[in-house]
Amino acid sequence: MQYEIRSGAYYDSVVLMQLQKGLAALPGVEDAGVVMATPANKEVLTAAGFDLEEIAAQSDDLLIMVRSDSAESAAAALSQVDTLLKPKQSDGGVAFRPKSLTNAAKMVPDAQWVLISVPGRYAAQVADDALDLGKNVFLYSDNVPLDDEIRLKQKASQIGLLVMGPDCGTALIDGVGLGFANRVRRGNIGVVAASGTGLQAVTSAIHNLGGGVAQGIGTGGRDLKDAVGGVTALQGLHLLATDAETDVIVLVSKPPSPTVVNKLLATALTIDKPVVINFIGYAPPARQFGNLWFANSLSDAARLAVEIVAIGASDSNQSPVSSIGPTRFFRGLFSGGTLAYEATLALQAFVAPLHSNVAVGAALELANPFVSEGHTIVDLGEDDFTQGRLHPMMDNDLRIRRLRHEAADPEVGLILLDVVLGEGAHLDPASELAPVMEEIGSAGDVEMVVLVVGTDDDPQNRPNQIGRFQDAGAHVFTDPTACFAAVARALLPVPQSPITNPQSPFSPPFAAINVGLETFYDSLIDQGAIAVHVDWRPPAGGNERMMALLAKLKRS
Amino acid sequence: MQYEIRSGAYYDSVVLMQLQKGLAALPGVEDAGVVMATPANKEVLTAAGFDLEEIAAQSDDLLIMVRSDSAESAAAALSQVDTLLKPKQSDGGVAFRPKSLTNAAKMVPDAQWVLISVPGRYAAQVADDALDLGKNVFLYSDNVPLDDEIRLKQKASQIGLLVMGPDCGTALIDGVGLGFANRVRRGNIGVVAASGTGLQAVTSAIHNLGGGVAQGIGTGGRDLKDAVGGVTALQGLHLLATDAETDVIVLVSKPPSPTVVNKLLATALTIDKPVVINFIGYAPPARQFGNLWFANSLSDAARLAVEIVAIGASDSNQSPVSSIGPTRFFRGLFSGGTLAYEATLALQAFVAPLHSNVAVGAALELANPFVSEGHTIVDLGEDDFTQGRLHPMMDNDLRIRRLRHEAADPEVGLILLDVVLGEGAHLDPASELAPVMEEIGSAGDVEMVVLVVGTDDDPQNRPNQIGRFQDAGAHVFTDPTACFAAVARALLPVPQSPITNPQSPFSPPFAAINVGLETFYDSLIDQGAIAVHVDWRPPAGGNERMMALLAKLKRS
Repeated sequence: MQYEIRSGAYYDSVVLMQLQKGLAALPGVEDAGVVMATPANKEVLTAAGFDLEEIAAQSDDLLIMVRSDSAESAAAALSQVDTLLKPKQSDGGVAFRPKSLTNAAKMVPDAQWVLISVPGRYAAQVADDALDLGKNVFLYSDNVPLDDEIRLKQKASQIGLLVMGPDCGTALIDGVGLGFANRVRRGNIGVVAASGTGLQAVTSAIHNLGGGVAQGIGTGGRDLKDAVGGVTALQGLHLLATDAETDVIVLVSKPPSPTVVNKLLATALTIDKPVVINFIGYAPPARQFGNLWFANSLSDAARLAVEIVAIGASDSNQSPVSSIGPTRFFRGLFSGGTLAYEATLALQAFVAPLHSNVAVGAALELANPFVSEGHTIVDLGEDDFTQGRLHPMMDNDLRIRRLRHEAADPEVGLILLDVVLGEGAHLDPASELAPVMEEIGSAGDVEMVVLVVGTDDDPQNRPNQIGRFQDAGAHVFTDPTACFAAVARALLPVPQSPITNPQSPFSPPFAAINVGLETFYDSLIDQGAIAVHVDWRPPAGGNERMMALLAKLKRS
Repeated sequence: MQYEIRSGAYYDSVVLMQLQKGLAALPGVEDAGVVMATPANKEVLTAAGFDLEEIAAQSDDLLIMVRSDSAESAAAALSQVDTLLKPKQSDGGVAFRPKSLTNAAKMVPDAQWVLISVPGRYAAQVADDALDLGKNVFLYSDNVPLDDEIRLKQKASQIGLLVMGPDCGTALIDGVGLGFANRVRRGNIGVVAASGTGLQAVTSAIHNLGGGVAQGIGTGGRDLKDAVGGVTALQGLHLLATDAETDVIVLVSKPPSPTVVNKLLATALTIDKPVVINFIGYAPPARQFGNLWFANSLSDAARLAVEIVAIGASDSNQSPVSSIGPTRFFRGLFSGGTLAYEATLALQAFVAPLHSNVAVGAALELANPFVSEGHTIVDLGEDDFTQGRLHPMMDNDLRIRRLRHEAADPEVGLILLDVVLGEGAHLDPASELAPVMEEIGSAGDVEMVVLVVGTDDDPQNRPNQIGRFQDAGAHVFTDPTACFAAVARALLPVPQSPITNPQSPFSPPFAAINVGLETFYDSLIDQGAIAVHVDWRPPAGGNERMMALLAKLKRS
């Protein structure tokens, strides 16, 4: 086994892969390893049977190792390194290759996009330059510092530009795939994805099911973390909401933060198009929730979107319950424990904080079930309330007292009650509850919602019960999800347009500047896009010490 | 305001509610409160404007309070308490009422069920007696100690009986509703519910959609907690799996424990019928997963069940991938991050422990992404693996090394790889991966599974790629969920029949003994069931001190 270390020099990953393959193919060579000597890469080499114990290479060093049948063949292989490293002549060699982004932008002034796949430590600077030139950015590079991502995205959103990434593997803009992308027909389904393979899996499945994709917007995997706040995903939703070609929106993500979930779902619920949502590892509050459809997997999301396109189902996102404004609260007083859980799960997805004595998801446990705080859901059938007392399905006394108490609170704008009919339950709940609702209705402007669960064969006469609650001024629902969707809608602020109204980044024909992996440029050309490849080199040839020195000189 | 305290006596909750209503209706009375003086109930009275500061009533005491326009009317009201407490003559008064369960059982020897709704502290003893008489138990009572629940359920399951509850609000057996239950038509959908209102909401919705219910088995809300271990839910699944009238099974629950989820889902996946699942607050791994269908709400579960009945969809629960037996492990080597997340989410629902560098749900974070442990899923596109190295979608080197390494591990029985096609990706992944799979196939008995994601328009020629993986001996899937379902099936032990094979508790006509709330007896009679009501009184009239003394005497 022999090796060579090259310090402080930058090499393109494609070049390194080709060098490794070239070495491994030489006579007598059994295995070759060519890596930047990071701890992780050294671990891989060790697992492959290379002995690294005595090798002092650092993360910035290129480590070239060869295992062969003899010392001679190893030496012969290593002597070929420079030849193998020499860049191959481009096949056609047609296009002139600018050395800088600025020059590239002059060559293709219509380019709205810059694709960046240089190593992470250089990527933020290139993206910054692209934004300064007024370009949208597809940032494939990973290992980009989080602070750079936040800064770049805030800057971009302020001037109406998109930064997809870092670590954005995939996008489909105006029918052209960026990075890793499948060839799919165009259509009327717009996708926003905080996940590269997620975007590939969903768009492939849409195509395979006969559907088509309007736009596929990647955000990078960290976009839906708290620190970034979903800037790009929100921009994407707003873009697709107003995009004339998009009839159905799909939003997919790896596990997002609960705060960002709230923002995205509250925004999506105010869009006038169906939105299919799949957050991996997230407990969905419903299948259909107003205009939202919650899918349980990537292929399920694709299937739902194609089905919705086929049916033309566009459930109105108007709620029959009036908005209670941002300063007033909701109180849900339940007799059915599972309905209380469902309501809590549903509403915690859209409003925060939500308090409950049956907290689930991001809802907060109510400190004292007898005292409401802010938005509150309370299950009055819990053990706390039923010691030596009948269940609230039989005995309305406790619920009537709480109902009066909540209605008298000037902070309260909306009260929801469930009424569960059937054997064993109170034989005429409306006779006791409706008069109280009528009192409340005539006294103030509190919205009253009643969810009636049961069948027309139940002993209580369901249509009669419903009619009496309606006469008392309540909105009556018989489907829990429809009920919770109407309530959620009433709790959300009236939709605002995004702070900045970005110029649409969609304007075919697609034209782009590529900085980094040449394969991405080749792929653009193959797809018939207009593209120019920048012959990018890191500052100071990637020599870290030199770069630091240059930066120091610049500052002084 | 005046009050009265009655110490150490037992009163039925219905009697207390009637007393309160009776007092409130008397002349001059503004409000009345009649409660066992628990801290929670005292809080309710205080909130209702009663002043309890000077009142020394304890939890075992009955507290009767009256607020009225004058001291005279309050005193007059309190003087009526004994009259109001006198039990009303039963309307018909036809049936003889036995004083003990044993006598009741002699009266209705065909009764397979005992309904128990006495206060929690007495309930376990009654349930124990019912089991000793060979009866199944519907245990409505709440506030029953957890230890009693565990003991009763283990005893019952050993002798092939069901204990539904404690805190089981609802069941539908042989077309008769127990406790709180809606009137629904009979049909071919069997429901198991760890949630009373859940069972009501689902069965009502099934009825309202035109479907019907075979049986509705309640388990009580704690059944799916770790301590209880889902004993009743598992019995319910086994019963419905073999029930001739049940074609589709629905399983609903409030948030269950991850361990119990594993047990239930692994059992459900081996049932030869479609099973619709809705665990509130649980992130489902898919929409359809083999014979399992994951619903996102109670009404969604009902809709899915009715749709599956209509379509007759009964996806085979046979996997094309052979079972690897209980002693060998699975390794998933992914290039697509989101696919790795989906696979982790899917498999953690069925096998534990599952390790992953993209842990989600109950999966455990892999200590070192370079080293597999037990069942492992690793995303090789994570930053750990891509520093100064091309993404595994372009460069197969790292994956090939890991694949060889895993295959050489005698503990490994199944390896899954994803192959993501499209622009930007390796132009012929099969050329590098398939030969290695062929090597592995000829060397041992490791099952190989490949998930191919892409379209037929992709530059790699998808059908050709698939053919070459199949030629190399791999099982190839194009739908992620179908792929993960086949893998999950191969990891589960071959289905066993339940340890005890309980005698079916379903054998119409329904006959039962009722102990506790008389309204439940009335409801059974209304529904045409055969029933007898036990004129139950607590031991020693509910006097705690006397009970303790009696128990002491018994022991000595």
